[in-house]
Amino acid sequence: MMPEGRDFASAQAEAALAVDELLQALLPEPAGHEADLFRAMRHGTLGGGKRLRPLLVLASADLFAVSPSRALRVGAAVEMVHCYSLIHDDLPCMDDDDLRRGRPTVHKAFDEATAVLAGDALLTLAFEVLAAPQTHGDAEVRLELVRGLAEAAGGRGMVGGQAIDLAAEHRPLDLGSVTRLQQLKTGALIAFACGAGAMLGKIGGPLRQALHAYAHDLGLAFQITDDLLDAEGSVAATGKRVGKDAAAGKATFVSLLGIEPARVQARILARQAARHLDPFGERAGLLREIADFVIARGQ
Amino acid sequence: MMPEGRDFASAQAEAALAVDELLQALLPEPAGHEADLFRAMRHGTLGGGKRLRPLLVLASADLFAVSPSRALRVGAAVEMVHCYSLIHDDLPCMDDDDLRRGRPTVHKAFDEATAVLAGDALLTLAFEVLAAPQTHGDAEVRLELVRGLAEAAGGRGMVGGQAIDLAAEHRPLDLGSVTRLQQLKTGALIAFACGAGAMLGKIGGPLRQALHAYAHDLGLAFQITDDLLDAEGSVAATGKRVGKDAAAGKATFVSLLGIEPARVQARILARQAARHLDPFGERAGLLREIADFVIARGQ
Repeated sequence: MMPEGRDFASAQAEAALAVDELLQALLPEPAGHEADLFRAMRHGTLGGGKRLRPLLVLASADLFAVSPSRALRVGAAVEMVHCYSLIHDDLPCMDDDDLRRGRPTVHKAFDEATAVLAGDALLTLAFEVLAAPQTHGDAEVRLELVRGLAEAAGGRGMVGGQAIDLAAEHRPLDLGSVTRLQQLKTGALIAFACGAGAMLGKIGGPLRQALHAYAHDLGLAFQITDDLLDAEGSVAATGKRVGKDAAAGKATFVSLLGIEPARVQARILARQAARHLDPFGERAGLLREIADFVIARGQ
Repeated sequence: MMPEGRDFASAQAEAALAVDELLQALLPEPAGHEADLFRAMRHGTLGGGKRLRPLLVLASADLFAVSPSRALRVGAAVEMVHCYSLIHDDLPCMDDDDLRRGRPTVHKAFDEATAVLAGDALLTLAFEVLAAPQTHGDAEVRLELVRGLAEAAGGRGMVGGQAIDLAAEHRPLDLGSVTRLQQLKTGALIAFACGAGAMLGKIGGPLRQALHAYAHDLGLAFQITDDLLDAEGSVAATGKRVGKDAAAGKATFVSLLGIEPARVQARILARQAARHLDPFGERAGLLREIADFVIARGQ
């Protein structure tokens, strides 16, 4: 994944390029009356983005010498789920956002109905990709990936977190509830991405636990940084509308902790995340750099 | 499935009850801030319905002596996908319907954002259910089910059909295009339900082909009947708004063929569907009765 001497930025750029190429291939534009659906799916997935989740899959798979082409398919599937959730989140009935990654959101570039369907189709395709033989030779591994992604993305994972987020508009949450919300809304998918390397490598036990602990702290550090960017960032820097949480009167890590303590907390969590990687030694260099990268945007 | 002498109505009622019980069990109402999400998922799935797709899974599985408890799980998964598609279809940005199965649609009983999320979570849960060991002891069978459902439900299946349906509002379709639309929009999931029995029983070859041919004709007969009900039925009889297609200026089998020829065509297709079951002999009695049942509503 990252030969000695290569820097993080080039490793990230290379991974992003590889994921984009695979997503391109998995989302061909068909002829016929449904062409707009696939254009909308492409618009919602191919428009840049940090590709953090695929990078986590690639980096965790590399710990166990898993073939990158397999890890890439899992990375593409996770990214499809992430992008579908953004498409639906941006809808007028949800966050009502016009801008994403510096471009019009899918319902702005197409229409609301097409955005709903594009999200639905991306979520479905993610499972099709994981279940295909190219993803892993062992059927049990593919099933574990399917179940893992479904659990992380569904009503007891990401979508459950989004539902709590909706409810939070009516009654403000305390720190414990915000933490749980974020662990579901963004943490579950990040944890799946980190755990996917162990699934692909058929690794259980303490090494898998270590990855899980890393993912837990990384997810929270990521979310605190997102809250910091929403409170302090600019549209130009984030490519999306900012100041949303305050405008909606939502409790966030930043509103509950204050800006500076939140920033310190993100640093502590990133350091703690990196420490969980000790059992992997040098091999976990990329995962350590990801932890630095995740909080750097908000420091 | 249907011992000699039992009538179709009681077989259907028994299957519907069993599916409802399993859906109840798969959709417990959690405590916590996400309770509304699960209430919305239950509202969208447990409100009655003909349960045609689970019945097709049970009846096709019975041809190969598959354990009904396994078939029931697949039936519940297909029904979740069907119900999620109805929840999203009913949204204001799609068909904008207030009534479904004689009750308020999910976005009316809750709100639009919750309806979007409830659909997303149901789709995700369907794959979780299929991938779980209880569904089949053979991992390859579970993977075939996951892939089959994803293909039937995604951009090249049901959602693709819905996208063509959207495009049809702007430019009317001819009979060939309407047929393709319906084969994707409703036919693909019906075909998966019929094929699931063969997947569970690990049956390929001509018997699987026969089921596929049955499903193809049944799906079209079903859709023509739906068009007839939309053109001629009442809200009281269908539990949903009628006359939608004509109001939207959409080309349907009924608008393209005329009412009486459409009715005749549905009968021909149902008879043809039943004939494909000849290789199964007496054992396919329930599937034959389903073909009669599917068109009876519109005759």
